Amino acid sequence: MTRRRQIYEGKAKILYEGPEPGTIIQYFKDDATAFNAQKKGTINGKGVINNRISEYVFTRLAHIGIPTHFIRRLNMREQLVRQVEIVPIEVIVRNVAAGSICKRLGLEEGQPLPHTLIEYCYKDDDLGDPLIAEEHIACFGWASQEEMQDISSMAIRINDFMSGLFAGIGIRLIDFKLEFGRLYDGDFSRIILADEISPDGCRLWDLATNEKLDKDRFRRDLGGEVEAYQEVARRLGLLQENAENEVLDFDSHRKKRGK
Amino acid sequence: MTRRRQIYEGKAKILYEGPEPGTIIQYFKDDATAFNAQKKGTINGKGVINNRISEYVFTRLAHIGIPTHFIRRLNMREQLVRQVEIVPIEVIVRNVAAGSICKRLGLEEGQPLPHTLIEYCYKDDDLGDPLIAEEHIACFGWASQEEMQDISSMAIRINDFMSGLFAGIGIRLIDFKLEFGRLYDGDFSRIILADEISPDGCRLWDLATNEKLDKDRFRRDLGGEVEAYQEVARRLGLLQENAENEVLDFDSHRKKRGK
Repeated sequence: MTRRRQIYEGKAKILYEGPEPGTIIQYFKDDATAFNAQKKGTINGKGVINNRISEYVFTRLAHIGIPTHFIRRLNMREQLVRQVEIVPIEVIVRNVAAGSICKRLGLEEGQPLPHTLIEYCYKDDDLGDPLIAEEHIACFGWASQEEMQDISSMAIRINDFMSGLFAGIGIRLIDFKLEFGRLYDGDFSRIILADEISPDGCRLWDLATNEKLDKDRFRRDLGGEVEAYQEVARRLGLLQENAENEVLDFDSHRKKRGK
Repeated sequence: MTRRRQIYEGKAKILYEGPEPGTIIQYFKDDATAFNAQKKGTINGKGVINNRISEYVFTRLAHIGIPTHFIRRLNMREQLVRQVEIVPIEVIVRNVAAGSICKRLGLEEGQPLPHTLIEYCYKDDDLGDPLIAEEHIACFGWASQEEMQDISSMAIRINDFMSGLFAGIGIRLIDFKLEFGRLYDGDFSRIILADEISPDGCRLWDLATNEKLDKDRFRRDLGGEVEAYQEVARRLGLLQENAENEVLDFDSHRKKRGK
């Protein structure tokens, strides 16, 4: 492997310069953080699973017409994506009250919201990603009104599609986080879905048992993080049952199955 | 004075049943609180000054067509107002960064905002009046979209008017808080301005010296709270110079001047 230039290292991913201009290699780490990185740890094999789940979800979203940065998976831990300018806003879509909103607004965990709620946070680790409103976004010029329209309408479509996708495999989509980026074409840009979609940034509860199949297992020291992430991948058809080790070697797994 | 029924006691005011149906008596206390009532104290004569300043500002706002709950001042500490159903949203209008927004978004105090920013907080002392967005207001039904349009357009007009009013007396309007209420007429209701406008809920800086003429003197233990509140009243023409004691007896003051 030739030496690559690292562009950015985040909490769960590293970005490298891609092979062609306008491309980026997104490397998925096993590092896990919570509560604005106050809690740190490792979930063995998480990067491999998230790379695979995110590939799967982004590919399916592209099929319903959501533009994304995803180009193709390169190997177990890496995917090739389009280079974008990340909009500094975390978009949180909530169907059921869980996590920070419960304490903030005095809601009970598991209480369905009257209707789907989109929240925006300003992406700034030093500030702890504070909640913001569209008024802040307009005031500080973090995104244009047209961009926010694209972002909110995509977020709603993504929520509908993912709610269906997970319902079909016995999982309730409680909430999830999205990030968007600007894809430039000369002076013009358009908004596309970026980052990743995985159990790191979604709350996924088993429909029958309410068991948590997401990063809350790590946040709350519930144990079984690896198994939960694998279970999501397995239900999505990305793992054969009784082949847990293969999560660590998807490519040989795919070869064996003759794909 | 006949015995009156107390309806509500807040941090700085008490509400009593008014003399006619649909009216309320708003009594202004000297009690001061800060940081969600973690800090408590008294500012001598504050209630008298705020009653007078709020009367003045609400009357002026009515003249430019802002509907308000204010009917008339009754005495030193009381005013008669229309009974409304308070919308559980604190509306904060910010022209310059100060207070909570500085830490939250990493801004320097005194930094002018790119443009006027309206923030909404959910009025709930137990939750510490958390910041919310229009999405929360819609999701939980705290106000209708039409009501929010009325509220935001009134807030912008009030900001323009008050910025001018205070600029004319050498004061910079940094930010302020508004509350609105629903005035019912049978099954119908319309939004009117409620609560009070006073140095308790405004940040007012002397234009020349940046001296704080508001509750931040109490919040930050700067001293001179009474003098600051009196200075605002004096500049608004509500006190004669060198007649500080008269703030405690406005009615006799008015009689003496033959009004």
